[in-house]
Amino acid sequence: MQYHVPAGFQMSGVHCGLKHRSRRRDVSLIYCPASSSAAGVYTQNQVVAAPVALDQQRTPTNEFRALVINSGNANACTGEQGLRDARRMSALTAELCDVQEEQCLVMSTGIIGEPLPMELVEQGIRDAHSHLGSDTANIDAAAEGMITTDTTTKIASRRFDIDGRPCHMLGLAKGSGMIGPNMATMLAVIMTDVKIEAQTAQRLISRVALESFNCIHVDGHTSTNDSLVLLSSGAATDQEMTEGDEIWFAEQLRDVCIELAKWIVDDGEGASHLIEITVSGCQTWADAYLIGQAIAGSPLVKTAIAGADPNWGRIVSAAGYAGPSFDPAGVSLQLNGFLLYQNGTPVEFDAATVSGSIQEHRETAIELQLSEGDAAARFWASDLTKEYVRINADYHT
Amino acid sequence: MQYHVPAGFQMSGVHCGLKHRSRRRDVSLIYCPASSSAAGVYTQNQVVAAPVALDQQRTPTNEFRALVINSGNANACTGEQGLRDARRMSALTAELCDVQEEQCLVMSTGIIGEPLPMELVEQGIRDAHSHLGSDTANIDAAAEGMITTDTTTKIASRRFDIDGRPCHMLGLAKGSGMIGPNMATMLAVIMTDVKIEAQTAQRLISRVALESFNCIHVDGHTSTNDSLVLLSSGAATDQEMTEGDEIWFAEQLRDVCIELAKWIVDDGEGASHLIEITVSGCQTWADAYLIGQAIAGSPLVKTAIAGADPNWGRIVSAAGYAGPSFDPAGVSLQLNGFLLYQNGTPVEFDAATVSGSIQEHRETAIELQLSEGDAAARFWASDLTKEYVRINADYHT
Repeated sequence: MQYHVPAGFQMSGVHCGLKHRSRRRDVSLIYCPASSSAAGVYTQNQVVAAPVALDQQRTPTNEFRALVINSGNANACTGEQGLRDARRMSALTAELCDVQEEQCLVMSTGIIGEPLPMELVEQGIRDAHSHLGSDTANIDAAAEGMITTDTTTKIASRRFDIDGRPCHMLGLAKGSGMIGPNMATMLAVIMTDVKIEAQTAQRLISRVALESFNCIHVDGHTSTNDSLVLLSSGAATDQEMTEGDEIWFAEQLRDVCIELAKWIVDDGEGASHLIEITVSGCQTWADAYLIGQAIAGSPLVKTAIAGADPNWGRIVSAAGYAGPSFDPAGVSLQLNGFLLYQNGTPVEFDAATVSGSIQEHRETAIELQLSEGDAAARFWASDLTKEYVRINADYHT
Repeated sequence: MQYHVPAGFQMSGVHCGLKHRSRRRDVSLIYCPASSSAAGVYTQNQVVAAPVALDQQRTPTNEFRALVINSGNANACTGEQGLRDARRMSALTAELCDVQEEQCLVMSTGIIGEPLPMELVEQGIRDAHSHLGSDTANIDAAAEGMITTDTTTKIASRRFDIDGRPCHMLGLAKGSGMIGPNMATMLAVIMTDVKIEAQTAQRLISRVALESFNCIHVDGHTSTNDSLVLLSSGAATDQEMTEGDEIWFAEQLRDVCIELAKWIVDDGEGASHLIEITVSGCQTWADAYLIGQAIAGSPLVKTAIAGADPNWGRIVSAAGYAGPSFDPAGVSLQLNGFLLYQNGTPVEFDAATVSGSIQEHRETAIELQLSEGDAAARFWASDLTKEYVRINADYHT
């Protein structure tokens, strides 16, 4: 597959042995030959992994040069040793790339609470540095080096014009457990060659995270390592964007983030359906968001869709405990386009037909309309299957 | 089994056909020959079932006479027809018991969104009225008439003295899906022969609900029908309780409510473990409660326990996204008495031993200590098994 690769980025992915049960790549490196901007959005969990603590101090910045990522070990809940290890990862990266340590970021994902086997990691970083490049194989390798229980790599790219010049955006993300919507979901990296000052990048990525990575639900468990960063080399444009360009750019960014966010849900552990929940007719976006979140997070809704069961009562009752107040007599519900509930009253429908429609399609559309106002929000959720339980009951010991 | 039966209550349970797949009883009746007090705590769901709307208007009261309960159909999301049907149930009960309609309460539980087959229900209520009594068989029958996917009836009773007189308390409850902790979980009835004025009863049951039924988690889905009522015939004592007696009585009430609440979790759909979560060292009870709730609600914690996996990282990270802020370096964790994490640092332990201890016992004890203060709270949760998914993916269609 061909990607739209932004100028000013080199990358690689290698196997060093952190994923000891497989030969999949487990260390990735992204390198900018020139100073670039970097802005990040990180987990709201009180328990923050060592690399996140490091990156929080180092972004936003206009002096970014390299990002090193490992998968297979989260370096979370690892105490002082964990912080030393994260710093060592950035110091070694800086040394190899001949940049300052403060210009480097670190991400980790995988098992919580085990010390990093630093000998393997250091070998991996050296190896990754010697494989840097920007062709398709490099991008595929870098995307593989950051995934854990994901069944596929997740890569999205776009080509668009800013100020008459061709620009590019490339996004890499991983899922697929501990996916709870609170400030981006571990891990996603968006690279672009549009010139963006760090504070602007911070404002854009924070806003877009709200409507993309923060609107997804696999298991509602906000991880200790969630990180979403926007890296901008500025190699394609000369000056800061105009207001109009910025709106256009934000649309591309939202588009790429939503594509990756939906993909994370679609590849959620054990998922057999990707559920798109649209809540409309609310007083505020926040009301619609909370209701979408409650529906997305209900194990009863998730199991109903897994069982191809048009059990709309579970959806309406989840909306009812979400928090925002609304008139139950103004509630209507459609599932895959079939009207099941109208103005607070059940509608007769052919259950076999609706069930068949859930069974036939991987995507299930839930549309809930209230009668409180004009605000709407979208949420994406995986369903809940026996396979999810199998994966998570067997993961560790 | 012998129960401690409070004086002044008669009850029954019959099968009328609402549970059409089985011969289990589906209508229960509780009758007081003399005026009694009744106080209730109901679901905080915005979407309230018809019988809940009725009972909310009728409690607290000192003129209570009868409570009719059906299982197999929740009479929720059933529009105007649902309200008419709930009123018809209370009117028929009043007529048969020769009391006022306003002296009667109604509870329903089961499938959401289907109209009640009133011909069956009316036959059931007549039948239940002709079987009223207060021996063991009556109590067992009444308890069976209110359960749905529960695998057992849930009955707790106590004998205690107030003012030198023998008094009694009998509690009946049902689970076992849509168990989310927000103001009591559908359905529980506590009967006592202690004399309690309605406003006092309301104050007591509201407080006790917070520490019992509100501290449990099967799937976090607050049902449309949650109802907990305290009925007091006053047949054993002559006057209102003294302050000292009230403290003593509240302890009995808390004890019975916690016994029933834990039972609901233990019989949670597909549950293979009852998890008791104790959170201590917090600034406030509310902080400890929120952290307990986050741990109890995490599918990753629930699947880890189902898989006998001492994956403490999932527990610590769930505490981290609960909301209250705390110092991660002051966190310690014990699982079934084994120390796994101390002051923010992993402790070496024999994973096979701890895993074996989870496997051998139905109850799993999680103790999380913070270093913020002296407040503590307990929460009870079921684990998450493939059987839960099977039950809920196959329930309806």
